[in-house]
Amino acid sequence: MAKNRNDDFVTEITPKSEDFSRWYTDVVRKAELADYSPVKGCMVIRPYGYALWENARDLLDARIKATGHMNAYFPLFIPESLLKKEAEHVEGFAPEVAWVTHGGSNELEERLAVRPTSEAIICSMYSKWVQSWRDLPLLINQWGNVVRWEKVTRFFLRTTEFLWQEGHTAHATAEEAQEETLKMLGVYKDFLEEDLGIPVITGIKTEKEKFAGADRTYAVEALMSDGRALQAGTSHNLGQNFAKAFDIQFEDKNQEIQYAWSTSWGMTTRTIGALVMTHGDDNGLRLPPRVAPYHVVIVPIKAGNYEEEVLPAARELEELLRTAGLRVYLDDREEYTPGWKYNEWEMRGVPLRAEIGPRDVKNKQTVLVRRDTRDKTFVPIDHVPGAAATLLDDIQTSMLSTARDFMETNTHPVKDFDKFREIMSGPRGFLKANWCGDRDLEVEIQQETSATIRCLLPDEEPTGPCFYSGKPAKHVAIFAKAY
Amino acid sequence: MAKNRNDDFVTEITPKSEDFSRWYTDVVRKAELADYSPVKGCMVIRPYGYALWENARDLLDARIKATGHMNAYFPLFIPESLLKKEAEHVEGFAPEVAWVTHGGSNELEERLAVRPTSEAIICSMYSKWVQSWRDLPLLINQWGNVVRWEKVTRFFLRTTEFLWQEGHTAHATAEEAQEETLKMLGVYKDFLEEDLGIPVITGIKTEKEKFAGADRTYAVEALMSDGRALQAGTSHNLGQNFAKAFDIQFEDKNQEIQYAWSTSWGMTTRTIGALVMTHGDDNGLRLPPRVAPYHVVIVPIKAGNYEEEVLPAARELEELLRTAGLRVYLDDREEYTPGWKYNEWEMRGVPLRAEIGPRDVKNKQTVLVRRDTRDKTFVPIDHVPGAAATLLDDIQTSMLSTARDFMETNTHPVKDFDKFREIMSGPRGFLKANWCGDRDLEVEIQQETSATIRCLLPDEEPTGPCFYSGKPAKHVAIFAKAY
Repeated sequence: MAKNRNDDFVTEITPKSEDFSRWYTDVVRKAELADYSPVKGCMVIRPYGYALWENARDLLDARIKATGHMNAYFPLFIPESLLKKEAEHVEGFAPEVAWVTHGGSNELEERLAVRPTSEAIICSMYSKWVQSWRDLPLLINQWGNVVRWEKVTRFFLRTTEFLWQEGHTAHATAEEAQEETLKMLGVYKDFLEEDLGIPVITGIKTEKEKFAGADRTYAVEALMSDGRALQAGTSHNLGQNFAKAFDIQFEDKNQEIQYAWSTSWGMTTRTIGALVMTHGDDNGLRLPPRVAPYHVVIVPIKAGNYEEEVLPAARELEELLRTAGLRVYLDDREEYTPGWKYNEWEMRGVPLRAEIGPRDVKNKQTVLVRRDTRDKTFVPIDHVPGAAATLLDDIQTSMLSTARDFMETNTHPVKDFDKFREIMSGPRGFLKANWCGDRDLEVEIQQETSATIRCLLPDEEPTGPCFYSGKPAKHVAIFAKAY
Repeated sequence: MAKNRNDDFVTEITPKSEDFSRWYTDVVRKAELADYSPVKGCMVIRPYGYALWENARDLLDARIKATGHMNAYFPLFIPESLLKKEAEHVEGFAPEVAWVTHGGSNELEERLAVRPTSEAIICSMYSKWVQSWRDLPLLINQWGNVVRWEKVTRFFLRTTEFLWQEGHTAHATAEEAQEETLKMLGVYKDFLEEDLGIPVITGIKTEKEKFAGADRTYAVEALMSDGRALQAGTSHNLGQNFAKAFDIQFEDKNQEIQYAWSTSWGMTTRTIGALVMTHGDDNGLRLPPRVAPYHVVIVPIKAGNYEEEVLPAARELEELLRTAGLRVYLDDREEYTPGWKYNEWEMRGVPLRAEIGPRDVKNKQTVLVRRDTRDKTFVPIDHVPGAAATLLDDIQTSMLSTARDFMETNTHPVKDFDKFREIMSGPRGFLKANWCGDRDLEVEIQQETSATIRCLLPDEEPTGPCFYSGKPAKHVAIFAKAY
């Protein structure tokens, strides 16, 4: 994997403090997570980045299945007339749609949208499949690619094509749809915190920020280490809007015809960007063990009886760790020094490094080095699998807790606009404030500070007037500058 | 899952012998593997069909990774100029390409092809990544969707969009590329036979049938139960064609600049169609245990103390089987009779059914019924996990062996064209014959009998003249009418 490193790659990583944006791009490219492609707006996810995505995807997929959903696959193309059925929906997405107009050398009778999201095509199938209350709830998820035209490209964060999952469910009652919307918001929160080590706040979007066609949009919002927010997943209660537009009707237990209630929820390859920006440091990536492509990299030290003793011992160690169910990589490449390899694998974020040299072979031990704290431990070979597992658990927990401390430290209660402006032009972060709910003022604040309302906190009651208008507050809102 | 069955679905399956094509469509729809979509040429893969695909995909993915490949992801779109770089390649694919011409409301400067296959985009990246012999071999696989415009739609077998994996590798020598091409052909053969229970023959394509841009195309060919062949996977040795077109060059160990040698290989959702047509019978699907969404379905019999005794015993059995690592579904739906459920799950191909009624509860036993042979076994509850595992192994083996017998019985050595025509207008099958290698005659035979050369058998020497031309034979060929 590390073989494909080119001389024209960045050779040093820009320090985070110097230029966060360049630091991010450097890390993504140098760690070989992704690369630019010859297609405008589109990137290539390289094997190391894709392995990270596969691990994340499998963990989220297990959570989605554990809550009773099954996966399915719907067409990539959506006929224009179908996309237009839900008025708000098409208005929201039309400016970003890629249109197929020709098949082979023939012009199509009707243009096909490359799906920007699949409500339209999926709801049109649900109207066929749902007839009776017995057909509900319908709990389906899809993993796939979607396309939303972008003028600016940022690795993982903003690309014309991206990978994601989109859940689409239909229910017999409004209550069930609301329960589902919140359940999946909870699944996202658990996945981000427990698997990716990314703490989040959850809340509801304002009318201005909600999904095109939804009654209510909920979101999980994370705070990146440059003080900007990243929306890491959304869960929409679509009410009966799509059921009415696409005619999803069923006969209820009283033989009455009803429209179904539907939800949709999605999480994308953006989370990989969030992972980089939450945990990375000036030496590169730091990966939470649960999703790291390798848990442990073994670096044999070329000294003493290398071929006869050190390398065979390193191979035994590799086998021992693999048998214990760990993902392990033995870096026995001849053309690089151990020091170069240490830097390389630190930069690529592998949680644990095992060093083994002639003296270690003699003492039947290895040195385990943590990526997050750089702590070193000498461990007898036989104890390595257990010791590694314990360290990995500790790294996973401690990465979340470090990130949570950062988020809490950078969540600022704000009572007036002067303070708001001051924080926004300084360290930024989550700004927590009482809010009157006026959409025009929301736009005004954004124009002046580039902060938007990330979410309203439905469980908190405002205890004073709006920080901006001085009018009575209806909500407690979290503001931030967003990715 | 079985909840979304509609009244407008087929209620009976057309017998295989009456109309194979209708039988196939009936089974796919009634078993809820797939459904028609509002997009011409595209189908929807329903949850039960997708679960089958996921299981197959994961097994093939593990084999691809075990042979040293890693997954990555490349853009869906290919700029027209890039697709045109390899002349034969674009000529082969241009008639099937879907073209994106607009992004939002803007016309694009250059049209983008929705990938029909990814050689062009992947090779353009390889030319960046490959500089030195140290960068080789480059062993990458991609799972994704591709689009090839189709006028006719057949579930899984022929759809405009389909899902697949495509491997793309680059090597330092011609020998290594050839070794890789054959290795992946072997991976496909093992996957089809061991995991899907589909026996295949492997061989090389004629010039007429090979991949556009390849030096040599190898294929795995299976025989469906209607005597038609299905190409289930292909592995291409691309020689230096793509390396030259896309400038994939490297410095070898002697500091000389060389073009790389490349391969590509793919397998698609077609294999699900092959699975249906290889194993299905007049009662519906028969699924090999390794890929079946459920290994066992439990049907509790509503009699005696149902709520207090039978249902709890069924739930215990479910838990017992799940803990043993089996995929299990307890069908405790109130609205259907046990007899209806037996038919339903037979039709959906579940390898084992466990029946449990009041008498079974009393005797601490269950009845296991095999889908393939319908054999019944009474098994004490405590022994069920072991007994089920043994039966599932046996079903897996016996399905392959039944299919292999069919393939062998229907592989006909043919010495003259009269016999050839007779078999082709009768039972069909694989027709094995000595072949002179004349491309014009290959076309002639196809026009007259609709049989094509599925592959040449590289390891067999012809022992007589060409069955058709009487000229000296160069190959032993397998002819068949293909899907």
